[in-house]
Amino acid sequence: MASARQVYIAVIGTGGVGKCFLSQLSALTKRRTSQKLVLCYISTSKKAIYNDDYAAIDIDNAVSALASSAQSPLALNNLVTYLAASGYKTVLVDNTSNQEIADSYPIFLERGISVVTPNKKAFSGSYKLWQDIFNASATSGARVYHESSVGAGLPVISTLNDLVETGDEVTKIEGVFSGTMSFLFNSFAPTSGSGGKWSAEVKKAKELGYTEPDPRDDLNGLDVARKLTILARLAGLPVESPTSFPVQSLIPKELESASSGDEFLAKLPEFDSQMEQVKAEAEKEGKVVRFVGSIDVGAKQVKVGLEKFDLSHPIAALKGSDNIISFYTKRYGSNPLIIQGAGAGGEVTAMGVTADLLKVLSQIY
Amino acid sequence: MASARQVYIAVIGTGGVGKCFLSQLSALTKRRTSQKLVLCYISTSKKAIYNDDYAAIDIDNAVSALASSAQSPLALNNLVTYLAASGYKTVLVDNTSNQEIADSYPIFLERGISVVTPNKKAFSGSYKLWQDIFNASATSGARVYHESSVGAGLPVISTLNDLVETGDEVTKIEGVFSGTMSFLFNSFAPTSGSGGKWSAEVKKAKELGYTEPDPRDDLNGLDVARKLTILARLAGLPVESPTSFPVQSLIPKELESASSGDEFLAKLPEFDSQMEQVKAEAEKEGKVVRFVGSIDVGAKQVKVGLEKFDLSHPIAALKGSDNIISFYTKRYGSNPLIIQGAGAGGEVTAMGVTADLLKVLSQIY
Repeated sequence: MASARQVYIAVIGTGGVGKCFLSQLSALTKRRTSQKLVLCYISTSKKAIYNDDYAAIDIDNAVSALASSAQSPLALNNLVTYLAASGYKTVLVDNTSNQEIADSYPIFLERGISVVTPNKKAFSGSYKLWQDIFNASATSGARVYHESSVGAGLPVISTLNDLVETGDEVTKIEGVFSGTMSFLFNSFAPTSGSGGKWSAEVKKAKELGYTEPDPRDDLNGLDVARKLTILARLAGLPVESPTSFPVQSLIPKELESASSGDEFLAKLPEFDSQMEQVKAEAEKEGKVVRFVGSIDVGAKQVKVGLEKFDLSHPIAALKGSDNIISFYTKRYGSNPLIIQGAGAGGEVTAMGVTADLLKVLSQIY
Repeated sequence: MASARQVYIAVIGTGGVGKCFLSQLSALTKRRTSQKLVLCYISTSKKAIYNDDYAAIDIDNAVSALASSAQSPLALNNLVTYLAASGYKTVLVDNTSNQEIADSYPIFLERGISVVTPNKKAFSGSYKLWQDIFNASATSGARVYHESSVGAGLPVISTLNDLVETGDEVTKIEGVFSGTMSFLFNSFAPTSGSGGKWSAEVKKAKELGYTEPDPRDDLNGLDVARKLTILARLAGLPVESPTSFPVQSLIPKELESASSGDEFLAKLPEFDSQMEQVKAEAEKEGKVVRFVGSIDVGAKQVKVGLEKFDLSHPIAALKGSDNIISFYTKRYGSNPLIIQGAGAGGEVTAMGVTADLLKVLSQIY
């Protein structure tokens, strides 16, 4: 039976993050007594489960039920209509990295459907989409949260929002925003020892599952540029797109057109001397090289690329595939507020989504 | 004129944190368009300003107006009645470290008055008070937030709550929780160079305003024990009080009864050899000594005191008077989620209070 404090939840995407989220959602529905959370729609790109009477879908068996479902996903505008007609508070959880779904957030928000997502595309696409999303939210009162779009579950976006909304002046944001790049440079140019050859480290990272299927999708810097776009906008800079500021690609020009990731990896050793030179130059200054993003708010400059750091700098001392994000602000002075830890992985990314959902739930009743 | 989305705010305390908070509140009232924030009560321990018709007090001139006010503070139960009778949503902001006010939070919360505060006393006192506070909040729906009770404006409590509420398993929390202790040990036992004599560093810290008027109030470890009590409880351990686990005091037994902070400081050099020995023992192992708090959730052990750390450990590498807090959890694995930065100071402490107020404002309508 429906109760006044019922919340309907629609979930799109059952990949690595999606599966972890469903497991966290299942536990949450059992713990939460103040509201009844009902999964009323779930879909992949090909299949879906939903009911005209919004009957609760068994969360624990949703993924296997989807595999044998005969229903196709609703078109996005029909999903909006379906949720808006429920008569209850509704939340869309988008666990994809799909641009089309991201583009549709404004029509969900306009109809009072809150959105939580780790999908970077909505917040790092065109500045007009960014404005449409937050204007729709402000007008309807529906909430939109995207903590996991930067640094996975690390409290990066909530912290930046708190700094800005309480009136602090953020002067600079700097950090390592890619788990892949973190792993590569912590191995290639460690603070002690000499590290491996660049191409060997890229190969190892791929074998360990730290890179995209084609490592060039990490090495082109676009993932980091998307995250910087989001943070810069939150800090008040109307950045037009992730390609509207300097982004250094680590793909040698000659290999940009390689026909596959495997061909790229096979030819990469020919370019090891270039990266070796970069490492040696840093060593000459007693430093190590890292792939970082930085935002100088006052100068309105955003950039992504290689930088040299003293061995004692927190960015140099990073371990494994950790992210680190430093906020320099007027209140915090010369020592920044620093957040550090795993910035990728299904469980921690889903945690950011679940925490966002909890925020929405605390606000919509 | 009153509107439906009006919120009445009562502020107690106009010390260092209180003044910074008022300045942030003033800016916030000008920026926030979705709700009208009305300061309807303000008090120090001796004076108050309030009006039977809840007329808005000019925030920018409140401190000087208080000095010439003829009104005395309301008794706490009368303040509850005053706020509850307003007919609007109300928030108590307690910017004191007063135990009596802390003890009264349950009667505010029971009547639907939300509470935000940096006051550690309520959350690190008896476990019964802790339970009364959160039970009252759960029953009435009034909110209670206290981010600045640990690490000032650093997102420590919100992060721990997110980890717990999304179902992560926190296994260990470890860190430097006192700006004073951080400054003392970063100077006394730096990772490079030899550092000063212990008594000289304590004297310097006092001169720079980093200690309480009587430095023994920092060196007894109770401030850190209070913070650990709060975090342990949030992590699920029903810690009875800040004196119910081992806390190492850095006050030599012979100086516990010194009649004043000045007498203590005058005699402290006689005990420098003890601390010198502690430092030398760590150095023999290639380590440095730091004053840390740790919570082992599985073993249900909380402790506060001196520990030795490798030079490359983030706790050893801390700078200035920064705090550092590491959360070890099942999801984050061997590399903890780390938060670092200034953990004391009026502006950053007030920022935590203002961010908490914003959370309440987003939830109560």
